[in-house]
Amino acid sequence: MSLRTQMTNLARDAKRASLQVAALAKNEKNKILKDMAKALQKNTVRILRANAKDVKNGRRKGLSSALLDRLRLDEKRIALMADSILEVARLHDPVGKILREWKRPNGLKLRKVSVPLGVILVIYEARPNVTAECVSLSLKSGNSIILKGGSEAYCSNHILATLFRDVLKKNNVPQAAVSFVSTTDRKAVDALVVLTEYISVVIPRGGEGLIRAVVEKSKIPVIKHYKGICHVYVDEAADLTIAENIVLNAKLQRPGVCNAMETLLVHAEIAPFFLPTCVRRLQSRGCEIRGCSKTRTLLRGVPGIRRASREDYETEYLDLILSVRIVDSLDEAIEHIRTFGSAHTDAIVTENKRVAQKFIDTVDSSSVMVNASTRFSDGNQYGLGAEIGISTDKIHARGPMGLEGLTSYKYIVLGKGQIRT
Amino acid sequence: MSLRTQMTNLARDAKRASLQVAALAKNEKNKILKDMAKALQKNTVRILRANAKDVKNGRRKGLSSALLDRLRLDEKRIALMADSILEVARLHDPVGKILREWKRPNGLKLRKVSVPLGVILVIYEARPNVTAECVSLSLKSGNSIILKGGSEAYCSNHILATLFRDVLKKNNVPQAAVSFVSTTDRKAVDALVVLTEYISVVIPRGGEGLIRAVVEKSKIPVIKHYKGICHVYVDEAADLTIAENIVLNAKLQRPGVCNAMETLLVHAEIAPFFLPTCVRRLQSRGCEIRGCSKTRTLLRGVPGIRRASREDYETEYLDLILSVRIVDSLDEAIEHIRTFGSAHTDAIVTENKRVAQKFIDTVDSSSVMVNASTRFSDGNQYGLGAEIGISTDKIHARGPMGLEGLTSYKYIVLGKGQIRT
Repeated sequence: MSLRTQMTNLARDAKRASLQVAALAKNEKNKILKDMAKALQKNTVRILRANAKDVKNGRRKGLSSALLDRLRLDEKRIALMADSILEVARLHDPVGKILREWKRPNGLKLRKVSVPLGVILVIYEARPNVTAECVSLSLKSGNSIILKGGSEAYCSNHILATLFRDVLKKNNVPQAAVSFVSTTDRKAVDALVVLTEYISVVIPRGGEGLIRAVVEKSKIPVIKHYKGICHVYVDEAADLTIAENIVLNAKLQRPGVCNAMETLLVHAEIAPFFLPTCVRRLQSRGCEIRGCSKTRTLLRGVPGIRRASREDYETEYLDLILSVRIVDSLDEAIEHIRTFGSAHTDAIVTENKRVAQKFIDTVDSSSVMVNASTRFSDGNQYGLGAEIGISTDKIHARGPMGLEGLTSYKYIVLGKGQIRT
Repeated sequence: MSLRTQMTNLARDAKRASLQVAALAKNEKNKILKDMAKALQKNTVRILRANAKDVKNGRRKGLSSALLDRLRLDEKRIALMADSILEVARLHDPVGKILREWKRPNGLKLRKVSVPLGVILVIYEARPNVTAECVSLSLKSGNSIILKGGSEAYCSNHILATLFRDVLKKNNVPQAAVSFVSTTDRKAVDALVVLTEYISVVIPRGGEGLIRAVVEKSKIPVIKHYKGICHVYVDEAADLTIAENIVLNAKLQRPGVCNAMETLLVHAEIAPFFLPTCVRRLQSRGCEIRGCSKTRTLLRGVPGIRRASREDYETEYLDLILSVRIVDSLDEAIEHIRTFGSAHTDAIVTENKRVAQKFIDTVDSSSVMVNASTRFSDGNQYGLGAEIGISTDKIHARGPMGLEGLTSYKYIVLGKGQIRT
């Protein structure tokens, strides 16, 4: 059977299964989620054994230590995975919610009700915990999921999917509701992303290269963010203690994630009072600074400040490197963010409410913050529950995308024989 | 300058203009809309003159009389166009709405606020009134629009766009907020639908061929419906008077539109009491019947009933032709709708609430109706205001798509220096 036929059958079965998942009651879904969490706990040894194979292969292939760390599971990480599934079980059911209800003059009663999307295709890289997150969110939202993980985590993802599918079977739900692409052939993705008849949405999670490749080939809507080039702008009316706390937190607390700051913008009026100390503190924590010419002039004498190029402003370092630029005005800061930003998360530090409001109104990013660290841009931090991804698109879901983003709606019209005149 | 460069410049300018449109106050937008309505009234003669050219060209090219009718403007139609713009002015402003507002335990205040999408590309065929509808809806929702109309209506669309752009200029809004593709070269569409950096969404309005061609090439999300194959299922527990009224209305009131019924499904138990009279009435109003074998057996002796093929069930006639199929159960009706339907609008006629609920729950269409004519599936009829299109997709907007569908949202986070721990 050709790869194309295999993928078509897989997607068709997932679609068929989605009709049954959509019809599951809230309690049934939560029971399955609890069973899934239990299955992880019970099978910790099997999971660790499979994961060890991936780690061994990864070492042989020369994966970086950062990647190996993302790949590696231990008892604690498996327990956290199980906890995250239980957390999803506790969230509100996003399906069947009456979003609006109204009556027309002719007596027609209308309801707009949330419904599942159908089938979700998730394409992801090395972190096996993504498997558990995505399965639990798609099941809770009444959808089928197709999992296409990276080859580095194949054995780990495979055992997790097998355990979840066993739970489905025991609960009389078609196993195709959690479909697992069991080939590591990259063409599988090409074959899947054209199946508009069966798959509602594609969510790629991983590096920009992976995501661009998916977008290039997909005929199905893709929800994504390419990268997070997040800015903090320290306004001339900033409280400098707040500014420094936020800058250090946004850059240093976890530099390898998409909501970490990549570029610091500082108003020229305040730069002399702010940058010298702040840069020293960043450097003392191991952060490399790349500055604009004004920054370098201001900080001449401070060693190790490379010149920031245009390319630096466009780069998501995901590392202990920071671009610093001094701007003459709020408008210049906004223009910089418009030119180089990725519309993910951008923050201003200011005590001036008018300035803050202008920043809020004109920075067109999925999250805009005033006097808070960009690191808060996250479904859990926002209190939205677990997220399946972050979207910098404006279509369907924007920002942290949780259960609500995995639903659509239908209009229900109740009449007594009304006809149109 | 190459076509690609021209289109890129056009889209880039539209994007730049969208920042200013997004910042317009409610009253400013409504004032512009009123000016646009006035401009149509004042320039009726100019519009009619341009339209006459299109009609003349169309006749020479041998357009069907139906197409010529869609193309033709007269004073009344222009007045209706102006009215529809004024109606949009009266709708609630969809931008800047606080969709949700909440506070986190750490004191962060969060707001989810509606924002414009940015730039909307509308690709449409022969009806010039689409120009006015789309311009008014995009302006009201704070977006720029790029208009790519069909060559048949080129002169009419061009004069309308020119008038609207004049109004923008007089109101100090960049004219690129209403961009007009002034070539009839079809490659212009190919060049536009890859400009993901500038255009947020593509809305094709027209025949299935046009829409499929756009979807095939677009890298930008497309919101659409390919066709409306709407069903009415007359259940065994139907009130037969209601059923007949709905069937006649859904088929005959305006057969050429997407929410007209294309296939009638009738429960076998009730068919002998319902179909003979109903079919006679349909035929007497000029409707051709194509029946399944059971229908033909039941109605043997009735002249002119052709055999319905699989292909008939898949066809949007948009004409006085109706497929009729007798089914043995609700499940068979649902299965038929799943197999052949287009997820647009499907109705059941029944007095049995349990049956109605099952139909509502399991028919996965954008509108599901009980005891009402499919012809109600429309933004105005639902009380949602004017619509820019109807979506059978599940991503972003489903069903009648009005102002709300032309917005996205952003998260605003207000802190007092909070950092993440």
